[in-house]
Amino acid sequence: MSTLAAVDLRGETVVLRRARADDVAAIVALLAADELGAARDGVRDAGDLAAYAAAFRAIDADPAHILLVAELAGQVVGTMQVSFLPGLARRGALRAQVEAVRVAESARGSGLGAAMMGWAIEEARRRGCVLVQLTSDKSRTGAHRFYQRLGFVASHEGMKLAL
Amino acid sequence: MSTLAAVDLRGETVVLRRARADDVAAIVALLAADELGAARDGVRDAGDLAAYAAAFRAIDADPAHILLVAELAGQVVGTMQVSFLPGLARRGALRAQVEAVRVAESARGSGLGAAMMGWAIEEARRRGCVLVQLTSDKSRTGAHRFYQRLGFVASHEGMKLAL
Repeated sequence: MSTLAAVDLRGETVVLRRARADDVAAIVALLAADELGAARDGVRDAGDLAAYAAAFRAIDADPAHILLVAELAGQVVGTMQVSFLPGLARRGALRAQVEAVRVAESARGSGLGAAMMGWAIEEARRRGCVLVQLTSDKSRTGAHRFYQRLGFVASHEGMKLAL
Repeated sequence: MSTLAAVDLRGETVVLRRARADDVAAIVALLAADELGAARDGVRDAGDLAAYAAAFRAIDADPAHILLVAELAGQVVGTMQVSFLPGLARRGALRAQVEAVRVAESARGSGLGAAMMGWAIEEARRRGCVLVQLTSDKSRTGAHRFYQRLGFVASHEGMKLAL
């Protein structure tokens, strides 16, 4: 089975598991529901759907990436991608990188985000990573406080160049 | 051949090429020569050397990563890792991530850093990436200005959790 963890939140069981191809629509809906993602994500036509499906296959085929969903009562209520990246720096350290963390409006405040990140941090330790890294848009000040409570330090500038 | 590009800098030809196993010591020396890397990198014993060699093999074996060196007159004077990461966000966009950019003291101010980044940006375009991303320690203000001149925007907080 693809279950990674089961967590109890407010007396309900949320299953963290690897995403399947048939979860892609629900994940895209979470990405598009986000204030910054609204302009960038969503399915307008078959071309978009094909692009998301191709990206899913690329992620799913590579053991360096885990695309995770959180399922509650048959509904996808959260998602996150964790990638494990080799590098020479820091004595040849493996690092875990977290991208595209989203929790459904209905599940906010339940501790789901912390449970998902807690799983990612434990998995990073299990694989021998020396650090977990992520970038968060500077407008997401609530998210920064959330990550700081988990122990993250905003030590770096996150720089992006659109092509 | 592993040559990726040849660039003319001040009348001398610098070759950008994929790193080989026998470049690892020179790359580690560049990482350790850095003010922040001095405490984190360097070869103290055979264990360190084995860790760097293992990381090199992991990078080299995976086509998602390119570990590059810049060679001038037989000497390694620069290094950079570029990784190509699939994700669902931004309509299933591939993104390029740049890590561990270093230029030898002797080659600073020659335009080598810009040439290396220019190559990375072109390679990212060629592979269909929609963005290039990197994080840079907040103390490296000169580096931030350099990346901004290349078009990067410091839009994100770069957050790290040491394990």
